[in-house]
Amino acid sequence: MKFTEAQFAEHMKGINGSAIREVFKLLAKPGMISFAGGNPSNSALEPDVIARLSDQVLSQYGTSLLQYGATDGFYPFRESAAQFLGTAGVKCSAETVLPVQGGTQAFDLLLKALVNPGDVVLCESPTFLGAIQAMREYNAKIVSMPTDSDGVIVEEAEKLIQKHHPKLMYVIPTFQNPTGITLSLERRKALAELANRYGVVIAEDDPYRDLRYSGDPLPAIQSFDEEGWVVYMSSFSKYVAPGLRLGAAVANPTLLRKMVIGKQSADVHSPMLVQAIIDAYLREGLMPAHLERICAGYRAQLNAMLEGFKHFPQGTKHTLPQGGLFVWAELPEPLDASKVFQSAVDANVAYVAGTHFYPEGGHSNTIRLNFSMCEIPVIEEGMERLGRVLCDAAQ
Amino acid sequence: MKFTEAQFAEHMKGINGSAIREVFKLLAKPGMISFAGGNPSNSALEPDVIARLSDQVLSQYGTSLLQYGATDGFYPFRESAAQFLGTAGVKCSAETVLPVQGGTQAFDLLLKALVNPGDVVLCESPTFLGAIQAMREYNAKIVSMPTDSDGVIVEEAEKLIQKHHPKLMYVIPTFQNPTGITLSLERRKALAELANRYGVVIAEDDPYRDLRYSGDPLPAIQSFDEEGWVVYMSSFSKYVAPGLRLGAAVANPTLLRKMVIGKQSADVHSPMLVQAIIDAYLREGLMPAHLERICAGYRAQLNAMLEGFKHFPQGTKHTLPQGGLFVWAELPEPLDASKVFQSAVDANVAYVAGTHFYPEGGHSNTIRLNFSMCEIPVIEEGMERLGRVLCDAAQ
Repeated sequence: MKFTEAQFAEHMKGINGSAIREVFKLLAKPGMISFAGGNPSNSALEPDVIARLSDQVLSQYGTSLLQYGATDGFYPFRESAAQFLGTAGVKCSAETVLPVQGGTQAFDLLLKALVNPGDVVLCESPTFLGAIQAMREYNAKIVSMPTDSDGVIVEEAEKLIQKHHPKLMYVIPTFQNPTGITLSLERRKALAELANRYGVVIAEDDPYRDLRYSGDPLPAIQSFDEEGWVVYMSSFSKYVAPGLRLGAAVANPTLLRKMVIGKQSADVHSPMLVQAIIDAYLREGLMPAHLERICAGYRAQLNAMLEGFKHFPQGTKHTLPQGGLFVWAELPEPLDASKVFQSAVDANVAYVAGTHFYPEGGHSNTIRLNFSMCEIPVIEEGMERLGRVLCDAAQ
Repeated sequence: MKFTEAQFAEHMKGINGSAIREVFKLLAKPGMISFAGGNPSNSALEPDVIARLSDQVLSQYGTSLLQYGATDGFYPFRESAAQFLGTAGVKCSAETVLPVQGGTQAFDLLLKALVNPGDVVLCESPTFLGAIQAMREYNAKIVSMPTDSDGVIVEEAEKLIQKHHPKLMYVIPTFQNPTGITLSLERRKALAELANRYGVVIAEDDPYRDLRYSGDPLPAIQSFDEEGWVVYMSSFSKYVAPGLRLGAAVANPTLLRKMVIGKQSADVHSPMLVQAIIDAYLREGLMPAHLERICAGYRAQLNAMLEGFKHFPQGTKHTLPQGGLFVWAELPEPLDASKVFQSAVDANVAYVAGTHFYPEGGHSNTIRLNFSMCEIPVIEEGMERLGRVLCDAAQ
């Protein structure tokens, strides 16, 4: 008998992987300027520092970094992560921090702990592609919350809560992926209040928070939580290195314990060596100067990209992010970003069509642009190329 | 509103974590001799080697180890892992090897890809605790296959396949956890044949294979597979370092692709640094001499433990493993290993009661003993202590 796709579980049958990953295959073309990714700049990565810290912690902790560790994490890292997150106003201690394989695993463990097939999960629309895929794999019913330039519209979210009794609300409050929009202070308070009043867990996915290039930092939604309804998910991917796959989730002790149990059978624990490296990074106090350096670079790149919209067709609207890695644009209709994509690739410039970020599809005139992976002259050149392609297509 | 356990998904409600992990809390007592764990010996771990390789690969590959990587893995590691597994007779190439966070994640991704709630999964009984928990979290219906001293009894397995139409069969063929038993060559062939004839995926969990202290190596079940029904799951936890959390799954391309999709939303990819370290370990040819060294130590420890059964009550039966980390014993009834446990801890010696390894419970007279974590005189002393406790309890 031949193995066939008929064997697959129902919840995995319709899931065929990230559309973005297909786009990436086109980007190997020489001369391509890509605004399609979401990686940190290579210049933000520090292999020498990581090598030094790796050596240092293996010498300091010896075999204990190579043995099995506790599922709830390497205690020194839990301590230093709690201190780091505390500066963002996150209420936490070493005991309520769980080391995870990036924010992606935090959300996966949360879905595993909470979601029965058919349970409703509210999310922003557009939202992070990986989150959409994860929700689908748990057979969650995805319901989109209306948003504006200040993020989720709280009154609309409340109506959806009353209507759908969701188990979970997924929000990226700061420099959202894909839009770059930041949820306002008032709305952060209001969402925390809704979560507590109605009994809805908020998954606050906040990996870009410290990549702020203008404006003042805002406290986490979690800082306004009263009774344990907000789970804060941070990651060192955008700050130190995505390839190390380390993040930290903060949850109330009851929920954290269930996430730990879920992690036991997912991967036992996060690699001790990686936890110890990031712990040493934090304890040596390397983060503030590092963030200052990379934010200076990203700020200039963002400004170059915003400047480049002058080449775009009249009627293009775009967000004005205060941080993060992305700018979002709405092209004048009837421009269709998916249809124009091939012409853009022919002109050696790439983006991601915004439709992929909508759980319900549509919104064919939107695009996501990343600025962190290109030097400034490359951004200028790329925006000019893309503007030309779009202006041609608009005619 | 207060967050309560009522929020949890149905499939997680009854799951309260590994019984073994509760046992571990008792082991901090000074003077305790523990046969309860399953860790490699500290003397098998090489922090200096890992530090050197970490430095080397970060210098060689630079920022690319710190960036996002492909979900299907770091290609050089896929190559070297395929070559390593090929020596075990596993049919694979770089393209059919998926780097995972230990065998634990391989099984989790396989369950995610294949199992609908209520689907039957066959397993040995007793079997690995972590696998039982993982199957429960996917709401699989666990059905135990009868075994004897040569492992799964194929005729009985076939009857269960005919009766239950299982989606999956979970088997630890070599030096099984918890029993130390090895599936015979004939049965390996026969199980592969059953899988192909009836269309049942076999999850062949083989993390102990190269910890062989006597007898001849046997080919993997997967080596007899014809049409892609056997998934081979290996791990570097027992060979190099469990704290690094790296394993390798081999599956047919259709199934591997679905596991990759599941991994995208589980953790995006395995840490690049860890993949590169183990790749360098394999490419430098460090494995053969390392395995020879650690096997020599483990062989002597195993023999000391087997010798120590002379202190046990008359009528005790135990396995005679040719490798791995565990010996399994059946105490003369009505001895109850859970009831005796506190007396053993009072006498400063610990084990795991065998009942925990049975999906259906029962078998209260069985125990699992680990020998890898104690020096030989400690094993001798511990077996004498445990023998005394058991003889006292048997009277």
